Amino acid sequence: MKLTILGCYSATPKTNSNPTAQVLEIKNHSFLIDCGEGTQVELRRNKIKFNRVKHIFISHLHGDHCFGLAGLISTFRLLIREVDLHIYAPKGLKEVITLQMKLANSWTNYQLIFHELTSNKSELIFEDDTVTVYTIPLKHRVYTNGFLFKEKLGERKLDMNAVLNADIDIAYYRKLKLGFDVENKSGKLIENNSVTKSANKPKSYAFCSDTAYNEDIVPILKDVDVLYHESTFLDKHEKLADPTKHSTAKQAASIAKQSNVKTLILGHYSTRYDDLNAFKLEAQTIFENVELADDGKIFEF
Amino acid sequence: MKLTILGCYSATPKTNSNPTAQVLEIKNHSFLIDCGEGTQVELRRNKIKFNRVKHIFISHLHGDHCFGLAGLISTFRLLIREVDLHIYAPKGLKEVITLQMKLANSWTNYQLIFHELTSNKSELIFEDDTVTVYTIPLKHRVYTNGFLFKEKLGERKLDMNAVLNADIDIAYYRKLKLGFDVENKSGKLIENNSVTKSANKPKSYAFCSDTAYNEDIVPILKDVDVLYHESTFLDKHEKLADPTKHSTAKQAASIAKQSNVKTLILGHYSTRYDDLNAFKLEAQTIFENVELADDGKIFEF
Repeated sequence: MKLTILGCYSATPKTNSNPTAQVLEIKNHSFLIDCGEGTQVELRRNKIKFNRVKHIFISHLHGDHCFGLAGLISTFRLLIREVDLHIYAPKGLKEVITLQMKLANSWTNYQLIFHELTSNKSELIFEDDTVTVYTIPLKHRVYTNGFLFKEKLGERKLDMNAVLNADIDIAYYRKLKLGFDVENKSGKLIENNSVTKSANKPKSYAFCSDTAYNEDIVPILKDVDVLYHESTFLDKHEKLADPTKHSTAKQAASIAKQSNVKTLILGHYSTRYDDLNAFKLEAQTIFENVELADDGKIFEF
Repeated sequence: MKLTILGCYSATPKTNSNPTAQVLEIKNHSFLIDCGEGTQVELRRNKIKFNRVKHIFISHLHGDHCFGLAGLISTFRLLIREVDLHIYAPKGLKEVITLQMKLANSWTNYQLIFHELTSNKSELIFEDDTVTVYTIPLKHRVYTNGFLFKEKLGERKLDMNAVLNADIDIAYYRKLKLGFDVENKSGKLIENNSVTKSANKPKSYAFCSDTAYNEDIVPILKDVDVLYHESTFLDKHEKLADPTKHSTAKQAASIAKQSNVKTLILGHYSTRYDDLNAFKLEAQTIFENVELADDGKIFEF
C-alpha cells in the first residue's frame, strides 16, 4: 500500500502548498482521492501515469477538494484517453462538470461514469476481487464523506519445499492457493495447511477530511492500519475548529486512539502555521504513532 | 502599459507551462485576461495584488482559458475581499460559477458582477475616464471574443517655464490641462497651446486568442500599439490549424501586418514544439517587430 500526497494544505493553493489530493496505490489500483486545483500538474510532478487513475473519490464540493477535476477530465480528453473513468462524489458535481463540458463543446471520448453520493450512512461504493471501498459520513459545512479502502484477504502462499516434497501436480497449485485440500500424484490427500502459508494480512486505509471532531466514525475506523485525519488547527485555535467544522491535531489523535488504528497521518493544515512539527507533538500527547503529510511525500505500508 | 504573462501555453497545464492568463496594467487598472487553472498561484508568484484585480475578461469557455476562475473567486472570498469583482465572459460561465458556489454553500461576501457576452459584433463593454474596452469577435470552436483595450487621450501637460513666465494663477492650471485658454493675473488672454504640450499619445492593446486566421478583425485592430495574437502552430502544421480553429505564427504575422500594429506578441504555443524561437523567425518573414510571450515575462510599452 503506497500513499502519495499531492497536496495537503487547507483552503487556497499557493506557490509552495497545494490543496487536497492524494493517490492511494492498493493492490492493482491507483485511487485518486480529492482533486484540488492543480492536481493534474502534481500527478505529472509525482510521475503518476494518468491512465492508471480509473477511480476518483471526491469527499465534498468545497473548491480546495474538487476544483482540479474539470481540468483533469479535460486533459484526459486531449490526451485521447480510452480507459473508463469513475467518479464517486456528492450529488451535484456531475451537473457542474456536464455543464462545463457542454459550454466548452468538449465531450469526453472515454466513458465518464459518475457515482453520485447522497447517503448519510456508510455504504459500499466499490468492490472487486481485491479491494472494497466504503464511505465514512463526516461532519462538515456541506455534505462530506471520508473513504475506507480495505484489501480483501488474498490467496494463501505456497510453501514450495513442502509442495514439492508432497509430490503435488502443478495443476492443483491454484486450488491450494484458494485453501482447498488436494490429492497428490499417488492419490494421497494432502491437507492444505501442511503445504501453504497464510496470505498477507489485508491492509486498510481511511481518509477523513474535512470533518469536525466526530466520534460517530470510530466504529467504522476500528483497527484500520492507516488513518489520514484532517488537523486544520492546533489546540490553541480549538475555538475556530467548531464553527468551521474542522479538527485540531489533538482531536485527530483522539479519534485515532479510540479507533485503535496503527498509524495516524495528519494533514489539511491551515497555512497560518509555520512549523508543522507542532501538529505532531500535539497529537503525540494522545497517540504515539503520528506521521505528518506534506506535498510530495510518499508513505509505504 | 505593462503586460505580465502568467501563462501562454495551449491546452493542458504542465509542471513548466501554464495555460492562458495575463495581466494588463493600463492607466490605473489591472485587468486580468483569461484565467486558466493555476492562475491564482501565478498571480501570487508574479506579486500581483489580488485587490488590484477588479475586472476579469474571459475570451471563451475552454478549460485552459477559464478553469482557474472558480478557485480565484473562492480564494478572494476566503481572504475576505470587499472590492467588487466584474467578470466579462461568454454567457454560461455565470451559471457554472453560481452552481459551484451553491454546491459549496460558499457565496462571496463581495459583489460579483457578471457581464454576459453574446454579441457577434464588436461592442463596448467597459468605459471610464481613462480607458475603453471593446470585444473583438473571433473565430473558434466555441463562442469567443478577443479584447481591445484603449487608453483615452489624457490631459495636456503644463510647460511650467511658459506657465510661470505667463504669470497664470495656480487656480487655472486644471483648466489649462483640459485644453482651455485662460486669463493671466493681469487679465491678458493666454492661448492654451503657448503654455501646454500635447498629452501622451494614448496606447492600445489587443488580445486575440483563441482564433483561426480571420481577416475580419483587421479593421478593429487598425494601428493598435501591441497585438497579442495566438500562434498555436508553425506553418508546417497549418493543416492542423484550420480544423482546430487556431492560427500559425505566419497567419498571426499577416494579421499584424494588415492591421499596421506596432508590435506583435505571439503566444498560446502548442507544447509539441521545443524551440519557441521558430515561431519568431517564421512570423518575421512577414512582419518585423515580433516578441515571444513566455510564462512570467513582462512587457512594458
